[in-house]
Formats: sequence, C-alpha cells, structure tokens
Amino acid sequence: MNDAFDYARYDRIRPIRWTGDALELLDQRKLPFTVEYLRCTSSDEVAAAIHALAVRGAPAIGISAAWGVVLAAREVQAADGPQADALLEPALQRLNAARPTAVNLAWALARMRASLLTAGSDWQQVLEQQAQRISDEDLAANRHMGELGAALIAPGSGVLTHCNTGSLATAGFGTALGVIRAGVAQGRIGQVYAGETRPWQQGARLTAWELQQDGIPATLIADSAASHLLKTGAVQWVIVGADRICANGDTANKIGTYQLAIAARHHGARFMVVAPSSTVDMATPNGEAIEIEERDPAELLGIGGVRTVAEGISAWNPVFDVTPADLIDAIVTEKGVVEKPTLALMQQAFS
Amino acid sequence: MNDAFDYARYDRIRPIRWTGDALELLDQRKLPFTVEYLRCTSSDEVAAAIHALAVRGAPAIGISAAWGVVLAAREVQAADGPQADALLEPALQRLNAARPTAVNLAWALARMRASLLTAGSDWQQVLEQQAQRISDEDLAANRHMGELGAALIAPGSGVLTHCNTGSLATAGFGTALGVIRAGVAQGRIGQVYAGETRPWQQGARLTAWELQQDGIPATLIADSAASHLLKTGAVQWVIVGADRICANGDTANKIGTYQLAIAARHHGARFMVVAPSSTVDMATPNGEAIEIEERDPAELLGIGGVRTVAEGISAWNPVFDVTPADLIDAIVTEKGVVEKPTLALMQQAFS
Repeated sequence: MNDAFDYARYDRIRPIRWTGDALELLDQRKLPFTVEYLRCTSSDEVAAAIHALAVRGAPAIGISAAWGVVLAAREVQAADGPQADALLEPALQRLNAARPTAVNLAWALARMRASLLTAGSDWQQVLEQQAQRISDEDLAANRHMGELGAALIAPGSGVLTHCNTGSLATAGFGTALGVIRAGVAQGRIGQVYAGETRPWQQGARLTAWELQQDGIPATLIADSAASHLLKTGAVQWVIVGADRICANGDTANKIGTYQLAIAARHHGARFMVVAPSSTVDMATPNGEAIEIEERDPAELLGIGGVRTVAEGISAWNPVFDVTPADLIDAIVTEKGVVEKPTLALMQQAFS
Repeated sequence: MNDAFDYARYDRIRPIRWTGDALELLDQRKLPFTVEYLRCTSSDEVAAAIHALAVRGAPAIGISAAWGVVLAAREVQAADGPQADALLEPALQRLNAARPTAVNLAWALARMRASLLTAGSDWQQVLEQQAQRISDEDLAANRHMGELGAALIAPGSGVLTHCNTGSLATAGFGTALGVIRAGVAQGRIGQVYAGETRPWQQGARLTAWELQQDGIPATLIADSAASHLLKTGAVQWVIVGADRICANGDTANKIGTYQLAIAARHHGARFMVVAPSSTVDMATPNGEAIEIEERDPAELLGIGGVRTVAEGISAWNPVFDVTPADLIDAIVTEKGVVEKPTLALMQQAFS
C-alpha cells in the first residue's frame, strides 16, 4: 500500500461489523434511503440475511458467512475442533444453502472448516481469528488491486463503471470501485460515471450513494447513454467487476457489461475487469461454457414495487452476460495484472 | 398498399379521434393502466393537452394541432379565409407554442394556414378537410413505409425496436413500428423485442402495451441486455424512428439508439431508420451540427414517480443521441428507401 495517498479519505463505508457477540450488516435492501445495520446474533439469522439480500456481493457474502460460523460456535459445546466440526455441520449447511451460486460463500465456509479440523480446545478462538483473517485479507486484496488498476490509468482520466463493486460488495474499498477509489486518491481520475444498472438499479441505488458518502464526485447515467458519453471523449476507461472469469479471460458479469465493452472498443476507450483471484475459474474454458442465469421477468415490469408495465406483457431478464477476452484490455486481481488476456497469459498467472 | 395482407388485424389503436365537434386524445400519461380519451372542445384545450404530453410523437402532435385550428375556427365569425386567418392568429400562436421544438407542429399549422389563405366563405369546411387530409396522409405514409421497410426483412426474422414509434406517435400504424406491423402481417417477423427505453420507459409503458393490444407477440428487455440478445442471433434487424435525419444520413433519435447501432454492427445485424420525409433536414449537414437536448436529471432519479436514488446525486440526462450514417443500413421514408445512406444518395432522394 502506497502511503503517499490518503486512501482512507475515500473509503468510509463498512458493510460488515463484528461486535464481539453479534454481526451487524448494513441492510442493502433499505439503501439509499435508510442506513441501518441489521443485527444478527445467530448463524441462522446470518443465513436469513444472506438469503434475503440484506448483504450482497460475493466477497461480502463469504465474509458474512464466516462470521455466521463464529456465531454458530457459540451455540455448541465441544472439546476440540474436529468434535465441534461435527456439531456445527447443520449450521454450515444452512449457511451454504443461503445463496448456493455465490462461489465465495462455499470458499469461505471451506476455509473456516479447514481451520476447525486442526484446532484444539481453543477452536472457538481459532474460528474467530479465521473469520477476521478472511475479512482482513479481502480488504487488503482490494487495496492492492486498487493500486494495480490505478497504475494503468493516465492522470486526468474519466471512468465509467457498472453495477456495484464497491465497499458494499466486499469487506471494504471494493474491486472495480476500489481501482476507482485509488485512482481518485492518486489524482488520476477526474470524473466518475455510473450506469444505473437496470433492472435492479445497483448503480443508481448503491454505487451512486457509496461514492457520494465517500466524497467522490460521480454522475449517474442511463445505461443506454453510455455510448453517447463515450463519444464525447469523457471516458478513458470502463472499469467493471466480475462474477466469473474463464480460463481464456472471457468474463461473466452483470447484464450490460458486454454492451459497454463493445462501446468502449468502438470509441477507443479501454476496458478493465477487477476481481479477486477466487473469481478466476480455470476449469471453465471460455464464456460459451457459462450458463447465463435468467431471473423473474417481474424485475423488469416495475420498480420499487410499483408496476410500470401493463399486465400480460412478457419480458426476458438475463442477469449476466459474457464479455469475450478480446474486448478486455486488462484483468486485475490481487495476484497482478493480465493485459490483453489469452489462455496462455491466464495460465501463466493463475495455474 | 398490398391487399394480400391483413394489416388492419395488427393496427387497432387510434390515438386521435375527431367527433365532428370535439377532438379526443388517448391520454398517454395514463397508459398503460388506464385507457382514457381526453375530450378537447377548444383550441386552448388542445394546446394544453399537447403541452402536458397527453399526446406525444411528432406526427401525432402535428395532427392534433391541425384539429385544434378547426376548433379555433368554431370560435370566430369571418367572411372568408384571409379574414379568418387574421382572427385565428392568436389561437395558432398558442398552439405553436405548446411544443416549440416539434417540427411537425409548425409544419401542420403552416399547412392549415396556407389552405385558409386561398379559401372563400367555406373556409371552415376547408380547414376541416385539410386537418382530415393531414391525418389521412400520415396514416397512408406510415402504411407505405411499412411495406417498403418490411420488404427488406427476410422471412423468419427477429427484430428489436427502441422507444415508441407506433400508432400512439402518429395517426396510426406508426413509423418503425409500422414496418414491424407490416413485417408481422406478411409473416416475415417471428419475434419482436422492445427495449424499455430509460428513463421515460416509452418502450415498457407504450410500445409493449401497443403491441399487446394488437396481438403482436413482443418481449420486453432491459436496454443494456440488447447486445446479449444480439449475440444469441435472435435479432436480424434493429428498427428505430428518428427525430431528425441530416443531409448525410446521420440520425438523431432517442438516447440509446446509437448504442444499439454499434451493437448491431458488431453482431452483423442490420439497422433501419423509419421516419416521414418531413423528418429529413437537408439544411443540417451532419450529426455534429445537432445540439443534443439535455433534460432534467430528476428523470433518472426515479421510475414511475418512485425515487430510487439518494438526495444530492447528480445525473446526466441527454434525451437524444446521433447515430452516424455509416452504422445505418437503410433509411425508409414514404418517398422510398435509401440504403447505406451518403450525402449523394440523400440529395438524390430528398433534394
């Protein structure tokens, strides 16, 4: 971490707080109008909060689940870690089932369990330390990615981001939004644009709010205004997160990402993907192997519970799309930067 | 008009009804949940309806204003047309000021006035005939454009449209949506996709409703899902309207149109612009000469009256964008089709 820059100034939000006897989650269902932490004192309450989207973002879900295991541990009596492991099995399964598709959830639970299996009588303390480590490592990885990504950005640049990849989705600082934070702190980024991200409005509800909280000047745009914005020359980098990065660099991310990548290439702007290395899936050869989840069309038929579309109209609501590697200029993880990703370069970096 | 196809089956909506003593306007502010005609019995009521967006779409505004002149005529006594013209001047000015940027409004009023200046004692009847003619010609032009555009579409095609360019924006049948109606009636189009068109949701509120009313199977998508849809190969033509077409073929239309044109080209789909020749402005050399109107950022800060964004967040809300001619495969007007438009081809067609 480069101490020359005041990153903390642009990084005030912490969506997950451990109080010593409870987990407090910044309730993202109520943002941006109400800032309220949901207090969870049992692992089942944590599972329910994950399931109900009070906490979202793959890294944030994993960290929350780890603290959920710590809370579960308070409910059992065991002589050592292996004995506790057997007793905690039902709670771990319930946590794991809260969002079965979030890869970080299973990853965090596996890491908690691994530490338990070698623990002695201090197994409760071991679990608490491991949860704290998972959280601390996420924050450190984000800050490191922030520096790696910001180094690619020329001073005076404008950037455009999509969805929410910020403090709210992680332990803090964020992935793509972490690069933007570092870029702002270093004086490289003069203007941040955020697409509203229909249909869930993560950009409008969460990213715009988060940047405002941290004093980063940001302008919201309609998703469909991105190309018109790029044409003005105001944007040098489009910076996004990832839900899965394939072996060849093809990247699944929030619907609309692919359209931004095409528009960026058309206008000569560059395109950066920022995600922890746990998002890289070398077992998936390319984007064609990714099945795109389609959600309830109802999400497109209204907003905030208010219906805007007539009854009987059908909608198509894919949640993700795949951006092919050849439209990506850089993939940034805490392990380093892969520029112009190919299978060979990805294997070199992640095998 | 090719009588082999049952166009009427797919064309039931009429937003403007003349009853002989009143103008009834399908109130588009209340769609899609309430289908209600607003009854206007004076030219000032018509002006107010235009101003308040009860009627929208450049051709529909022009036709409404023409009927507004007919209503104004009922309020004055004059021996002949020229005398009536002087008396009607204030009413014409109020109608013209209702939406000063809509070129069709001034065009329709000028046409009404021209017929008045040569009229004798039957000037009231002349005005009524002229208003009816403006309406009839619009409908006929739309049907003709429908046939011209549909002829470009191979059987079994899927199409994607943006904003609302249908019966609701015209006397009936529509421009881009008229091509889609004709294509469906002729069995050329198997599937219609409509982008919701943030921030005003014209696609979601109006186009989806209009196609549903006429029994045309349509699927709503988020604007940012267009590229993902194009990648599936489901769309052969993107078909849009126009607010202004420049001498070289550059086309201003609803924000998001340009992004669709880039995406269509990237995927090898074709891009069609459909508009009456009155939309062609040979005095504007190219898109760079068009100033893009920016509207109140508040439109982006909520949907359907529900605020979704925190206070204090700024937004950029351009209403239109410009699609360069080299991304357009065909411009369809009632005068014919200009394929791969250039200045020379446009001059040939419109000078």
